[in-house]
Amino acid sequence: MMRLKVYADRMSQPSRAVLIFCKVNGIAFEEIKVDISKRQQLSPEYAEINPMQKVPSIVDGRFKLFESHAILSYLASAFPGVAHHWFPTDLSRRAKINSVLDWHHSNLRHGAVTFVVNTVLAPGVGLPLNSQLATEGEKLLSSSLSKLENFWLKGDGQFLLGGFKPSIADLSLVCEIMQLEVLDEKDRERILVPYKKVLQWIEDTRYATRPHFDEVHNILYKAKRKFQEKRSKQTNNETGPTDKITLPSKI
Amino acid sequence: MMRLKVYADRMSQPSRAVLIFCKVNGIAFEEIKVDISKRQQLSPEYAEINPMQKVPSIVDGRFKLFESHAILSYLASAFPGVAHHWFPTDLSRRAKINSVLDWHHSNLRHGAVTFVVNTVLAPGVGLPLNSQLATEGEKLLSSSLSKLENFWLKGDGQFLLGGFKPSIADLSLVCEIMQLEVLDEKDRERILVPYKKVLQWIEDTRYATRPHFDEVHNILYKAKRKFQEKRSKQTNNETGPTDKITLPSKI
Repeated sequence: MMRLKVYADRMSQPSRAVLIFCKVNGIAFEEIKVDISKRQQLSPEYAEINPMQKVPSIVDGRFKLFESHAILSYLASAFPGVAHHWFPTDLSRRAKINSVLDWHHSNLRHGAVTFVVNTVLAPGVGLPLNSQLATEGEKLLSSSLSKLENFWLKGDGQFLLGGFKPSIADLSLVCEIMQLEVLDEKDRERILVPYKKVLQWIEDTRYATRPHFDEVHNILYKAKRKFQEKRSKQTNNETGPTDKITLPSKI
Repeated sequence: MMRLKVYADRMSQPSRAVLIFCKVNGIAFEEIKVDISKRQQLSPEYAEINPMQKVPSIVDGRFKLFESHAILSYLASAFPGVAHHWFPTDLSRRAKINSVLDWHHSNLRHGAVTFVVNTVLAPGVGLPLNSQLATEGEKLLSSSLSKLENFWLKGDGQFLLGGFKPSIADLSLVCEIMQLEVLDEKDRERILVPYKKVLQWIEDTRYATRPHFDEVHNILYKAKRKFQEKRSKQTNNETGPTDKITLPSKI
């Protein structure tokens, strides 16, 4: 039997959610890296898999699928080994999980991506940092975190909608927030620290999906250190003397 | 038994999709108008129904739900009278419909709303028209229409994914595109006319959901005429003589 193929770049948060989901649930799959930094998602070969030229996508036998939420709900339904709490069959429970996931698109995801791209990532793909967009992104990101803290996480359990075990929505949204790791620490603290339940929920989701959560996020932790070193060098150059020999013309 | 309650404003495209769905499928419901032009969605009473303060939302007995895609899939599953084609139970078919709906959020919907708000609607809610955002909105809207024409509508049937009957994705996306009715006719033609399959699909969806489609869109057709009259007056004032007595200080 052909194994499930997952086309992903671990630097993409929806890719990470799908990979962690497969690993936690013991789904046998082949991970095929589509390197966004090399624009591999734009290749004609990949357009045959996903004409939208984004990651992640899956191929299950002859069946192709993209959009991470659709992938997660498909996998939860198609693989019998997946525990029930990930995507309960109860109609009203499932509808609530869908509601969180639909809300995610234009709120948490849109805010987080807009902010992170326009404060950190844009130069890496040849785009300028746009401070106006960064400000708008932070506003939407913060209001989304506030809705998580005060509405989605207000139930009895430690997960979304009062759950005692994580659903696909917990995994998807926590992976989204994890991209804030690459921010300047001051930005990250300003944005996240006010939301104590959100911080605890990230830890609970990480714990519930250990050790796969950290293994799949490892690339992000490395990127975080790289960006920190870059910022630290910039600060030294800007604010004080340095022992390094530098070219005056570049200062 | 308590009837289903649908909180909606027919000027909102996701509201229209939910209302048409209920009517076409003979679901008994009570429509409760939440007038966005009067900011009723921001009232404390409505926040009890939907803390995100948007329309539509539903109350089914003690069960509350918002986000139109989640509502449509819930209604298709919870009401036994709904025909199977709206949201087939076959796993791969359902996954594809979910993929279209997930794609919709950050593509067709984001592009259409950004363009229409920044060319027509913003002044009505006290915001300025932003031409840069309008340009970005049109770009995303046009690329989304192109994906509809060349990918989502490329199958055998006349509906999305090659379907011979409409699914909840057809209804949701067509209602989204219908908001272009309020545009200046030149803008609307420039954007829509290149996409012949999309135009035919709108007609097919309208026909498949008659007479409810036009009945629920009637408010939009009225708004279209109102905006046309307003534009026609502006043009007359700008380009030629007028018989009306006008205050010179305002010209």
